[in-house]
Amino acid sequence: MNVLRVHHIAFAHSAESDAVEALSTHLGLSIEHVEKADGFIERMLPAGDTYVQTLESTGPGVIEKFVDKRGSSLHHVAFEVDDIDSAVAELKERGVRMVDAEPRSGGMGTRIAFAHPSSFGGLLVELVEDRKNGDHPA
Amino acid sequence: MNVLRVHHIAFAHSAESDAVEALSTHLGLSIEHVEKADGFIERMLPAGDTYVQTLESTGPGVIEKFVDKRGSSLHHVAFEVDDIDSAVAELKERGVRMVDAEPRSGGMGTRIAFAHPSSFGGLLVELVEDRKNGDHPA
Repeated sequence: MNVLRVHHIAFAHSAESDAVEALSTHLGLSIEHVEKADGFIERMLPAGDTYVQTLESTGPGVIEKFVDKRGSSLHHVAFEVDDIDSAVAELKERGVRMVDAEPRSGGMGTRIAFAHPSSFGGLLVELVEDRKNGDHPA
Repeated sequence: MNVLRVHHIAFAHSAESDAVEALSTHLGLSIEHVEKADGFIERMLPAGDTYVQTLESTGPGVIEKFVDKRGSSLHHVAFEVDDIDSAVAELKERGVRMVDAEPRSGGMGTRIAFAHPSSFGGLLVELVEDRKNGDHPA
């Protein structure tokens, strides 16, 4: 397992939350990327070598459920790895419970896999392979 | 306001949570720094240019209250700024509600100030000045 960096930290929020505007206005962060998904809008705001990812609930789905239960809250942390296939295989060998048994497509052309928080003491961990940053062109 | 990077992302947890062990065993992160505070133990695990900060509840205080209410959960995100005095002054001028009206001492010799989540759409934001990384020796 070779963790390269914290790729992003995700904050899930309601449509009423002004988190994105506040991060922009008060801290000077800017939105580099926006992507619509099923039930939420994902925005990526770079800060140094990491992104703040905001997940705005727009309809039924995992983000709406999370926000309904917990309010607008930090949701998960994503670590970039150089090889997500071997990273996921390694976690499974260790008995880590995976939400995603195999890597799937994520935002911005990445490949991602979530582990279950029960295997990380309550922390929701995502692994990300970001090929544009990697040593192995697709 | 000049945000340099995400300094750390903080995860608050109970003594029963094995988050620190899991981050170490499964992801290969290592504990670079440990600091005892009033009611919690802070551990810093570097990942690239950012730290994962774990806050283990050890007794009455803000972390215990948070964990009692929400379970082991992500707690806040900390942004490094080059000049925390001017950053806090700027936030106050903008009408941002501050938990810390003036910077105070944080872990590892840093200076820190928390903004109130009501000013960031529910997100608890910490500012950090890390003099060992800065351009202005103490």
